[in-house]
Amino acid sequence: MTKAKKIHIDTSIPTLGKPKIPSPLQYCRFIPQEASISMNLMDSGLEEENLPVLSFEMAGPRPDIYFDSTKVKCAIVTCGGLCPGVNDVIRAIVMETRYNYNVAAVLGIRYGLEGFIPKYKHDIMELSPDNCADIHQFGGTVLGSSRGPQPPDEIVDALERMNVSVLFIIGGDGTMRAARKIREEIESRRSKISVIGIPKTIDNDISFVTRSFGFESAVEKASEAISCAHTEAVGAFNGIGMVKVMGRESGFIAAQATLALKDVNFVLIPEYPFELLGKRGLLPALESRLIRRKHAVIVVAEGAGQHLLAASSEKTDASGNPVLGDISTFLIDEIKNYMKEKGLAHTLKYIDPSYIIRSIPANANDRVYCGFLGQHAVHAAMAGKTGMVVSKLLGRYVHLPFELVTMARKKIDISSDYWRAVLESTGQHAISPMVEDPLMCDAKK
Amino acid sequence: MTKAKKIHIDTSIPTLGKPKIPSPLQYCRFIPQEASISMNLMDSGLEEENLPVLSFEMAGPRPDIYFDSTKVKCAIVTCGGLCPGVNDVIRAIVMETRYNYNVAAVLGIRYGLEGFIPKYKHDIMELSPDNCADIHQFGGTVLGSSRGPQPPDEIVDALERMNVSVLFIIGGDGTMRAARKIREEIESRRSKISVIGIPKTIDNDISFVTRSFGFESAVEKASEAISCAHTEAVGAFNGIGMVKVMGRESGFIAAQATLALKDVNFVLIPEYPFELLGKRGLLPALESRLIRRKHAVIVVAEGAGQHLLAASSEKTDASGNPVLGDISTFLIDEIKNYMKEKGLAHTLKYIDPSYIIRSIPANANDRVYCGFLGQHAVHAAMAGKTGMVVSKLLGRYVHLPFELVTMARKKIDISSDYWRAVLESTGQHAISPMVEDPLMCDAKK
Amino acid sequence: MTKAKKIHIDTSIPTLGKPKIPSPLQYCRFIPQEASISMNLMDSGLEEENLPVLSFEMAGPRPDIYFDSTKVKCAIVTCGGLCPGVNDVIRAIVMETRYNYNVAAVLGIRYGLEGFIPKYKHDIMELSPDNCADIHQFGGTVLGSSRGPQPPDEIVDALERMNVSVLFIIGGDGTMRAARKIREEIESRRSKISVIGIPKTIDNDISFVTRSFGFESAVEKASEAISCAHTEAVGAFNGIGMVKVMGRESGFIAAQATLALKDVNFVLIPEYPFELLGKRGLLPALESRLIRRKHAVIVVAEGAGQHLLAASSEKTDASGNPVLGDISTFLIDEIKNYMKEKGLAHTLKYIDPSYIIRSIPANANDRVYCGFLGQHAVHAAMAGKTGMVVSKLLGRYVHLPFELVTMARKKIDISSDYWRAVLESTGQHAISPMVEDPLMCDAKK
Amino acid sequence: MTKAKKIHIDTSIPTLGKPKIPSPLQYCRFIPQEASISMNLMDSGLEEENLPVLSFEMAGPRPDIYFDSTKVKCAIVTCGGLCPGVNDVIRAIVMETRYNYNVAAVLGIRYGLEGFIPKYKHDIMELSPDNCADIHQFGGTVLGSSRGPQPPDEIVDALERMNVSVLFIIGGDGTMRAARKIREEIESRRSKISVIGIPKTIDNDISFVTRSFGFESAVEKASEAISCAHTEAVGAFNGIGMVKVMGRESGFIAAQATLALKDVNFVLIPEYPFELLGKRGLLPALESRLIRRKHAVIVVAEGAGQHLLAASSEKTDASGNPVLGDISTFLIDEIKNYMKEKGLAHTLKYIDPSYIIRSIPANANDRVYCGFLGQHAVHAAMAGKTGMVVSKLLGRYVHLPFELVTMARKKIDISSDYWRAVLESTGQHAISPMVEDPLMCDAKK
Repeated sequence: MTKAKKIHIDTSIPTLGKPKIPSPLQYCRFIPQEASISMNLMDSGLEEENLPVLSFEMAGPRPDIYFDSTKVKCAIVTCGGLCPGVNDVIRAIVMETRYNYNVAAVLGIRYGLEGFIPKYKHDIMELSPDNCADIHQFGGTVLGSSRGPQPPDEIVDALERMNVSVLFIIGGDGTMRAARKIREEIESRRSKISVIGIPKTIDNDISFVTRSFGFESAVEKASEAISCAHTEAVGAFNGIGMVKVMGRESGFIAAQATLALKDVNFVLIPEYPFELLGKRGLLPALESRLIRRKHAVIVVAEGAGQHLLAASSEKTDASGNPVLGDISTFLIDEIKNYMKEKGLAHTLKYIDPSYIIRSIPANANDRVYCGFLGQHAVHAAMAGKTGMVVSKLLGRYVHLPFELVTMARKKIDISSDYWRAVLESTGQHAISPMVEDPLMCDAKK
Repeated sequence: MTKAKKIHIDTSIPTLGKPKIPSPLQYCRFIPQEASISMNLMDSGLEEENLPVLSFEMAGPRPDIYFDSTKVKCAIVTCGGLCPGVNDVIRAIVMETRYNYNVAAVLGIRYGLEGFIPKYKHDIMELSPDNCADIHQFGGTVLGSSRGPQPPDEIVDALERMNVSVLFIIGGDGTMRAARKIREEIESRRSKISVIGIPKTIDNDISFVTRSFGFESAVEKASEAISCAHTEAVGAFNGIGMVKVMGRESGFIAAQATLALKDVNFVLIPEYPFELLGKRGLLPALESRLIRRKHAVIVVAEGAGQHLLAASSEKTDASGNPVLGDISTFLIDEIKNYMKEKGLAHTLKYIDPSYIIRSIPANANDRVYCGFLGQHAVHAAMAGKTGMVVSKLLGRYVHLPFELVTMARKKIDISSDYWRAVLESTGQHAISPMVEDPLMCDAKK
Repeated sequence: MTKAKKIHIDTSIPTLGKPKIPSPLQYCRFIPQEASISMNLMDSGLEEENLPVLSFEMAGPRPDIYFDSTKVKCAIVTCGGLCPGVNDVIRAIVMETRYNYNVAAVLGIRYGLEGFIPKYKHDIMELSPDNCADIHQFGGTVLGSSRGPQPPDEIVDALERMNVSVLFIIGGDGTMRAARKIREEIESRRSKISVIGIPKTIDNDISFVTRSFGFESAVEKASEAISCAHTEAVGAFNGIGMVKVMGRESGFIAAQATLALKDVNFVLIPEYPFELLGKRGLLPALESRLIRRKHAVIVVAEGAGQHLLAASSEKTDASGNPVLGDISTFLIDEIKNYMKEKGLAHTLKYIDPSYIIRSIPANANDRVYCGFLGQHAVHAAMAGKTGMVVSKLLGRYVHLPFELVTMARKKIDISSDYWRAVLESTGQHAISPMVEDPLMCDAKK
Repeated sequence: MTKAKKIHIDTSIPTLGKPKIPSPLQYCRFIPQEASISMNLMDSGLEEENLPVLSFEMAGPRPDIYFDSTKVKCAIVTCGGLCPGVNDVIRAIVMETRYNYNVAAVLGIRYGLEGFIPKYKHDIMELSPDNCADIHQFGGTVLGSSRGPQPPDEIVDALERMNVSVLFIIGGDGTMRAARKIREEIESRRSKISVIGIPKTIDNDISFVTRSFGFESAVEKASEAISCAHTEAVGAFNGIGMVKVMGRESGFIAAQATLALKDVNFVLIPEYPFELLGKRGLLPALESRLIRRKHAVIVVAEGAGQHLLAASSEKTDASGNPVLGDISTFLIDEIKNYMKEKGLAHTLKYIDPSYIIRSIPANANDRVYCGFLGQHAVHAAMAGKTGMVVSKLLGRYVHLPFELVTMARKKIDISSDYWRAVLESTGQHAISPMVEDPLMCDAKK
């Protein structure tokens, strides 16, 4: 069992100043200014086993707010890869700020952080209830996006130049690190600009976010592709259907789709090292499966099996993420060679649904979720909070400091009930060779 | 604000006896025999405002079990209306019992509790991994269902006759009351039969269950129908699209679909009384909406507005639920008459998607959820628990005594943030006439 | 076998005058001015058995056109009930007129023929490539619609007042009759206004149109509802799932969905009279099915069984269509009474998907089809054709005079291979009582 | 304009002998034994421009049949790649033979033609109404498939050994050539075995088949992927979304999906040669599009642009099809290099939906179509026809000799209205460089 890292966790949220202005909200149940909630995160699927009970600031509208909302200008920027629901979050922020807080204007920054930097010459989009009314029906982001950071000082220059008081920033891990730097730059200038993040990750790998928005929609779509791989597999003698899904460092999409479908025989994720050969190797297990059942379905997360790739690149992409080795091409070659050696005729069909999974519109549940994330982001901003993201954690909307969500990626705990259920669904126990089997019951050891 | 009912809540789970047999599970992380988790349910969307922190028994596999599983026969019965995911739960129970606990046999009881009663002559279905492998791809229940209770003694007679040690019972509120009686009958006979419930309600109205299985799938489908109503409404001059959705006593489907769609202008639910006429009446508000926007979309839960129906029936159906008055026909007539009086030409298109919403297969997320519910039900049964249901409460799987879930229906708290978001989405504040406006901020009072 | 009516059929298309202006189209293969195509319509699914080979004017761009297109103003109006693809047709007309023929303006008439009549005060919408670019992604009609005719002289007054040279009119049978009167009024005034129809009928019941646009999309959606009825039927002991689908005088949706699904046991359409009782009655056949298989699925077109409804109304609706008796309520009552008499416990679940079927966006195939219909309508108009509709007949796009398409409704030939395949799929031969069985082979007579 | 090849076309169908046995069909309208239909194929979308009017044998049940059906054994084999609807065709053949012709047995040959060859040791599957009842709900083929021919004599040996009188063979171009050889082998042995083909091609490239089954379903799915590419393209500055779709020698899927979606800016198909550079080159056109609109969507059929690939392989795959060069990788590289040279920052997102498109279940329309294809195949076989396929040609079901369908692939006529509509939808005229523009109007030349 993984030994818990003992870490100090500060969950307090910085503010720009004391909220003194009565909220303009007409109909609501206000949350007390300092409302907090304690949660026992044990067994929550998070990695930290022995995490103490933590106390989080609750999300929700406050009776007194910091900004004179009718004079405030807000900006929204979307960064990194697409994810179902981004337009829903944008829409919710626009509707809440304009209709309920009567905010003066909401600016849409085009193409991610680039939009702040003069040299790119991207225009600014004014966002209004009118031009945002239907955007939730489409995937993607109406603002456009880009990868990678930009100089924090130039960003803050732009915010000041445009007279923006609140920046809503929708993005992933890297973006939240950039947001933290923007926040620090603002603080060093003693500017009164709030920076509020809405964490976006199709991989569902942000800590202290039970389920990131868009994840369910993505899993639904990934399941379709895997279902096709199953059809292809059974449609040929010794047919192998292989599907690559997103999951750079965490295999949640692969695992969840496997649980949804029941047709997967091998699921390979970054958290779960495996060997190709030997008693518990993938290839002999695949061979045995083919001999017994004449077909097999393999789901591989893009970040799986990196330990097997000889010259794993040390390059990083524009967002600072390491460039991953191509595990699927590697596996296809290894399977072909192995089966050839064994004289086992087979047919391998490879499916890479790639962007199909992330560019669809959000499903009903994700839409509702995105709506609340956007509204709570606005409540937080108006109350003068900053340097934080809105999260739904174990069923509650809370405020989390940037520091907390960027501390470590969330990963699948391979000794959890969740992963055990995945393995049971695939029946692939046999290929966990390199670690002592983490699921072997204590009683059996 | 609703005054909290002060109630004693016992969350302890009865057992058949001391578990002494080592679990046959090979790969798992056992939960300590008496593992429990404390939860602060405040703000959880449940009605009880000032609920104290409660302690629940955690779900999960135990190191020692009560039954010698290889000698055990289980039975599954499905009761009440269809709901997406029932087949997924059946499949999960069959796979977990047969593959992991090596249970001797799983019997499928046909057509609900009727299946136990000799006079109906329904046959018994043997459930196996083979004949259950693909059932999750279809809506409905492979076992068939029926409404209403049957004599508990005859049911227990049947269980004893078939030598069944564990009864898994999938059903709603009424079914759980029946299950409680079965459990009492078993206890009075000192039989060693475990009764485990998996709560099913498409209305999402079971207390202490954050979101019931199938609810998301149902909302997705209901949204489609409402979207059609919107298309019809804008397709005619002063077009009114009206959709009836499920929701006998709780309006969760109506509310959630409204949040997902953004196109609804009036949402009527059982928890939210409204008047037809007067300053804040529905009809003048509808008239005003038509004059301003030339179309309107109304979503009405089947149990809404019962206070308006003159001779509200006191009849009950086979499940003991009161027969509801027909609110949609009533509203259609009232709207027609009102608009005729006002000389406002209009077109009303009424859609009742009815069973379309509940008979579809579950979506990916519900499938995964149902899988865990089924597995945890089996773990609980094998450990000798009885008289309980498996629930996911604020992100955790726990055991709840029958008494707790049948105590009161879960309803939408119309003073909650959730309902406020619904009203904001529709813009219908004006029609809340009969109660002092619960959402008016304290500060404004 | 139905005796063929011997009728004279004139397929020639009137024109406004000689086309003398070279077409502005840059890239195309022109159709010769008088291009025609001969077709043998025997066995085409049309009723007229002994129809001679007919010669139709081919659709397509002509080298010379009648209108100086850059000076022309067009108008589009949509009438009657919604149908998948209407927005696609509108979009295609706008794109073809504006981009390829450089037409000066396209006016959108709001809410059907009402939009022409001053007293309704509906505004006019200017249609442009910009505001029509995305409309095909939505169901319904962006112009709105209404039922029923309006005075032809007032309509032509409006056309002249707005200086419109071409009227594109999208609608059904009744609308095409109205269009014919508008055309006659124009002719009597010797106005140079072209009237071009695009036949719309979700029932697929327009003669000389092999498959009307939107029909396939509607069938796909109807199939979903029927599939739900099947799930409900098997989910209860002696479960009966009944679905009502559109089909006032022709049962194409019911028949086609039955062929697509394979799960239907009784399909009732207007063309196929049936008795309730007696040796070949529906009710005994249903009883026998329940006894054998414990469930049954019935699909009933709204216009079926009108001969059974005692006081079949002689009222007509705004479009002049007879108001139909409510066959489904009638059948539900009859089934309940019959089964009660026979002591056969059963559960009946009734689904009326109604507008859900017609307000969805078109599927890919219908979208392509609508695009060609719109383009060919524009080619015809520019060439000076009038008094005609565009149709796809046995794979070819042709021009049909209004007279031809309004002559008679297309119905299912119950002695055709098509209907035989439907009956085989349901296995319901036994309930064709009132006519000598039309499918009994000649050889057997 | 392509010069018509003057070819002699024989459309007569060989038979095994004189049909003398009265058909066992109870309810049907028989087609006269020698019924034929004449069709004018001009403008039918087929390549042969000046094709004379041809006379085809009509499909349908005959009053007298050749086989004593109750004593007959049939076999079904599925070959080549998957295609939506294969299971529907299998199901229809099984139902028609077993229920209506009371055929003794239907054997399912596993994994394509391999299933006949002893060395592969594939088992035989007995197909019955019971085990085929639900197969149409799944994609793929329950029989499995394989590529490539097998020795005709060994196949006929197997047919004789199994005492099979009718072989139904579902497959593409290559398969129909193999079927022709099997037929010749049978003839040389004077065996009384009928070989009936049902043409399957997801590319829609079989001559004399207006639209092959599964094509519409495939286009629907391809459209989804292209829609995602559009979302990705607009989600990045100078975003390029590129999608590869099936289409080895004919670009129908690419073209049809383009017409359905309206969002495609460049569609590249095998029939339409293009240059990369120069006045009308793809790359400058793409550059210009990015500068004007900041995003672009490219759809490329897998067989497009082969003339650009230097060392275009001369290898062939197991089915004898030439191995295609990888046009998408080539284009991605060329675009990157070109844009780099031009200093145009851009983002390219590539989507290859591959097998996702072909392994889905058929949509409602394709299901109905497959049902008729299967039934007509059975009627033909029972009547003693052989050496033929069933086709729907311009709305009619007809019999075509193997020779006709294997004569030449159907391709998109790039001087047709159809292709013109595609180009108009994309606005890409400018990139047709290598041929004199085929769409330039005659009047303009």
